[in-house]
Amino acid sequence: MARMAAAGDTEHGTLAERLLAGDRRALARAITLVENDDPRGLEVVRAVYPHTGRAAVIGFTGPPGVGKSTLLGALTKLERARGRSVAVLSVDPSSPFTKGALLGDRIRLSEHFLDPGVFIRSMASRGALGGLSEATLQAALLMDAAGRDVVLLETVGVGQAEVDIIDHADTVALVLMPGSGDSIQALKAGVMEIPDLIIVNKADHPLTETMVREVRAVLALGPRAAWQVPVLRTQAETGVGVQEVLAKLAEHRAHIEAQGTLRERRRRHLRSEVLALAAARLRRDLELALSEDPGFQRLLDRVVARELDPASAAAELLSAPGARGSVPLPPRPGAR
Amino acid sequence: MARMAAAGDTEHGTLAERLLAGDRRALARAITLVENDDPRGLEVVRAVYPHTGRAAVIGFTGPPGVGKSTLLGALTKLERARGRSVAVLSVDPSSPFTKGALLGDRIRLSEHFLDPGVFIRSMASRGALGGLSEATLQAALLMDAAGRDVVLLETVGVGQAEVDIIDHADTVALVLMPGSGDSIQALKAGVMEIPDLIIVNKADHPLTETMVREVRAVLALGPRAAWQVPVLRTQAETGVGVQEVLAKLAEHRAHIEAQGTLRERRRRHLRSEVLALAAARLRRDLELALSEDPGFQRLLDRVVARELDPASAAAELLSAPGARGSVPLPPRPGAR
Repeated sequence: MARMAAAGDTEHGTLAERLLAGDRRALARAITLVENDDPRGLEVVRAVYPHTGRAAVIGFTGPPGVGKSTLLGALTKLERARGRSVAVLSVDPSSPFTKGALLGDRIRLSEHFLDPGVFIRSMASRGALGGLSEATLQAALLMDAAGRDVVLLETVGVGQAEVDIIDHADTVALVLMPGSGDSIQALKAGVMEIPDLIIVNKADHPLTETMVREVRAVLALGPRAAWQVPVLRTQAETGVGVQEVLAKLAEHRAHIEAQGTLRERRRRHLRSEVLALAAARLRRDLELALSEDPGFQRLLDRVVARELDPASAAAELLSAPGARGSVPLPPRPGAR
Repeated sequence: MARMAAAGDTEHGTLAERLLAGDRRALARAITLVENDDPRGLEVVRAVYPHTGRAAVIGFTGPPGVGKSTLLGALTKLERARGRSVAVLSVDPSSPFTKGALLGDRIRLSEHFLDPGVFIRSMASRGALGGLSEATLQAALLMDAAGRDVVLLETVGVGQAEVDIIDHADTVALVLMPGSGDSIQALKAGVMEIPDLIIVNKADHPLTETMVREVRAVLALGPRAAWQVPVLRTQAETGVGVQEVLAKLAEHRAHIEAQGTLRERRRRHLRSEVLALAAARLRRDLELALSEDPGFQRLLDRVVARELDPASAAAELLSAPGARGSVPLPPRPGAR
């Protein structure tokens, strides 16, 4: 199946085979390979890719502290009660300053740690080919291939990096809490695209209705669309309103399936992914080739000395002897 | 000076010449060209680049609503009182949902609109070569070349996109307000690197001291560095504490000049910039070549049909006949 010997091959089969059989340890191992940018990780993805596309991938974003992990725990509980298997993927596009935050949140999912029907994984940003966003998709594909019915994708914040990650989901939910003013401002300012669902958690807070009104006012500024974004109130700690979230998620999925937008979304996301991976590879090749190169250092010296501007320096790099003179042509169909 | 006729050439000289003479309209025109990804914009940057590197570029980031614009207004007032010319560049890495936010903030700088010593400009994300971050640097270079002593760079939020933008500054300040919990969490989670200054605005709020303590606690988790990050209290509306901010900014500049880190920072930023511009150009060439290409559509069809995984599709793109077979070599020194 795999063209090179995959890491984790045993007498019970290749890593890819064990992953497809639903082996949790094989899944964990494959994600680690992807995260570490090990070529064997992409090899496993390649092998299992034909078995993907079945899971519902649902993204959750929002500021830290609103209770996303608690909500994910509550949703997981309900999904498990219906007999559906779940994978949770928490992604933190953070700098290396401190790494405790998401790990701490994992504790809130701890009641599911012993359930084989629940697979929980955090990812951080080091060394992933083409960035964390690309590694996230690869990990989600592996979870999908391992037979998880639902993949819950979680990220913190509403910046571009978080949006790029959450864009791999079929359905996107923004989680807020009363008083999380930064985020409503971000939504208002258009830093974030309109999500498919908005969930106001900690809805026992006295400012809940104010928050719901503010959110509705922001939504009213946006364009009219076929899907009307619901604003839901939850208290994830006690489970209040979580059933309703599940129902709306199912409704949204039925909507995008019926409208053909699920297929459209996935095609658009996969297109971005292919281009991002190709561009990342070009950039990495460039950086690798230049990192120790004395010619590049001299070019930079000229930029620092204000003799040559950055854009001209970039153009010089690309037009240098040996540089690729033409744009890659797409392969002929069936050329492979 | 410019190799092609620059937009805005008049009997008073080329656009670049007028910009170097400090002409505000020439500066505005040149930034528009850069923002619109007009090749004549880069041509102007190229022409004026030898005259850059003199301005102090100071970045301000933080969530919406903390009073960044009011603070920038107050700082501008003090700089003007010392006879220094100022440029303010507000950058909004937002989606096209709504564009009112930063424009509204501009009103807070309105008392400076008629002062020729103050130049104010907003930028949004459309069509900039290599993304908004690259366009931001180009605009800052133009302001620098136009003889502005101080360039105040402002962005909203602490996501990766905002960090990339603010990284062009010599000195970075994070602006918070009491109760802006999302941001302190982001800092704690390491979503943002440690800034050079932290400013707690609206410091007449009863929760100010709690906020200052929280910030100090987060800073204490970080590594010890030669520069101790000051936590300052301001009330930008009335000007309280703003003089102190100015003093700390000057102190930080003296520090990085004395330590040689200013030169180091700028070299690092310019290096990233050159690589980002080169990579962006490669990506754009790729996207342009592929956008209408039936072969690429068929490749995508195979990805969507789960026959071919995204990474293999990216590899096929780059290894296709006509694709660039080797990594660009850096130019020989003096080859130009």
